[in-house]
Amino acid sequence: MNDSKDAFGTGMTYEQMAHYVRNTGYSQLIGAELQSCADGKASIRIPYREDLTQNHGFIHGSVIGYLADASCAWAAASVAGDCRTSEYKINLLAPGAGEAFIGRGEVVKATRRTVVTRADVFAVLDGTEKLVAIATATMMRV
Amino acid sequence: MNDSKDAFGTGMTYEQMAHYVRNTGYSQLIGAELQSCADGKASIRIPYREDLTQNHGFIHGSVIGYLADASCAWAAASVAGDCRTSEYKINLLAPGAGEAFIGRGEVVKATRRTVVTRADVFAVLDGTEKLVAIATATMMRV
Amino acid sequence: MNDSKDAFGTGMTYEQMAHYVRNTGYSQLIGAELQSCADGKASIRIPYREDLTQNHGFIHGSVIGYLADASCAWAAASVAGDCRTSEYKINLLAPGAGEAFIGRGEVVKATRRTVVTRADVFAVLDGTEKLVAIATATMMRV
Amino acid sequence: MNDSKDAFGTGMTYEQMAHYVRNTGYSQLIGAELQSCADGKASIRIPYREDLTQNHGFIHGSVIGYLADASCAWAAASVAGDCRTSEYKINLLAPGAGEAFIGRGEVVKATRRTVVTRADVFAVLDGTEKLVAIATATMMRV
Repeated sequence: MNDSKDAFGTGMTYEQMAHYVRNTGYSQLIGAELQSCADGKASIRIPYREDLTQNHGFIHGSVIGYLADASCAWAAASVAGDCRTSEYKINLLAPGAGEAFIGRGEVVKATRRTVVTRADVFAVLDGTEKLVAIATATMMRV
Repeated sequence: MNDSKDAFGTGMTYEQMAHYVRNTGYSQLIGAELQSCADGKASIRIPYREDLTQNHGFIHGSVIGYLADASCAWAAASVAGDCRTSEYKINLLAPGAGEAFIGRGEVVKATRRTVVTRADVFAVLDGTEKLVAIATATMMRV
Repeated sequence: MNDSKDAFGTGMTYEQMAHYVRNTGYSQLIGAELQSCADGKASIRIPYREDLTQNHGFIHGSVIGYLADASCAWAAASVAGDCRTSEYKINLLAPGAGEAFIGRGEVVKATRRTVVTRADVFAVLDGTEKLVAIATATMMRV
Repeated sequence: MNDSKDAFGTGMTYEQMAHYVRNTGYSQLIGAELQSCADGKASIRIPYREDLTQNHGFIHGSVIGYLADASCAWAAASVAGDCRTSEYKINLLAPGAGEAFIGRGEVVKATRRTVVTRADVFAVLDGTEKLVAIATATMMRV
């Protein structure tokens, strides 16, 4: 399913993306770490913090949404260079309970104008991963 | 389109919801203010801050996503009481450039188990509102 | 919300689109009629037929999906010329019971490469319209 | 990713579902065949016919949408019994060119009220499968 080769542009390196993530206000605010990114796949991690929770005490859906969107965006950037999110859709499957949260995005199809991607988001509790959300996103090449 | 009467449950008041928003870690972290919420409609505002931006300097898509999701959730809560997001889908129409950002959600259809909602998100620049995103969200009654 | 003016291309006329609809195999198979289409809005109607139903006897969700997708596509075509669907998302709100079904699409935002659209789908029962689905679709200019 | 065991209800058998498909007006109209369905997975096939095409001669997006939605619905039914589609979202990746089209759905997560599913849709050309669409769908237990 992963059609990551790109005949149309040049992808970013992990170092370029990690630089972006470190220098992006919002990514710093919520404590996002780029774990890996290459060949149409990206993984981002956010440790639990009380100021990232919603009114039931679980991690806020927007943080889950960030992990889905951003892991898709960086997966796309690894094959297509700079991209922006055109649209995404997320299904929240279970409450975000855990000591950390990981989004894993991958490229499904890259064309001349768009990159279609999918992501799974996991909560890590006592070292075990649980799927808490699935998403699809369309990126536009900038 | 706004079928906000609810034969199945009791909605929350603005005071109850504003209390939730003030006591929710993530809503405080990003500076969200509940402007209004009643009769199946809700409006939430977030002022621009540099630590809410992405790598191109615009407001981060996750903040736009928060405004869509949360304004839908509180619109649903006004007719159906406590809800959680089952899924949402957002289209980002224009860069998030402005001094503040407003999400306006409304209930489209409330049933015994779910509440389907729509939101528009606006950037406010020099006092003028510009549509920057549209979204649909499904809420489950808790 | 309807930003239908188009600085980038030339829209199709109603006559051009009606010709397409009449000569499209699938549109003929399911009995679709283009009611109106201009200025970023389109309306399509399909009368009830037993061979359009699903296993509970209501109109099949795919027919509702066709009305959403096609009314969005023709709304986009009215401002942007020939388009293809990049993605769509639909929420089914109520069973499709009625003597006819109508999809009404409208352009939300047209840019150089994409046209973002929304649609409402109605069932007509004893002359009264009931909202049965809402949708969002992204069209790519061909 | 496939959490197909179901503590809440009883799934349908292949024979029950094939009976439904054979006796459903719309499924017959477009020539859908249930290839397999068990343990949270379903596969549906539709041979090419000229009366299933859109204005560019490819298979109509609604037929692709049917394959996504129906393969998700039957995958859900195999673990949860009778379901109806609450919402779905589809990304069309490539034109529907081929001698047949196959939708493969699978259950991602089944809860007491909903079943979240994913599908891939393929075009078969000269015996080779090509991915033409990906989708996510939420089913409600009836």
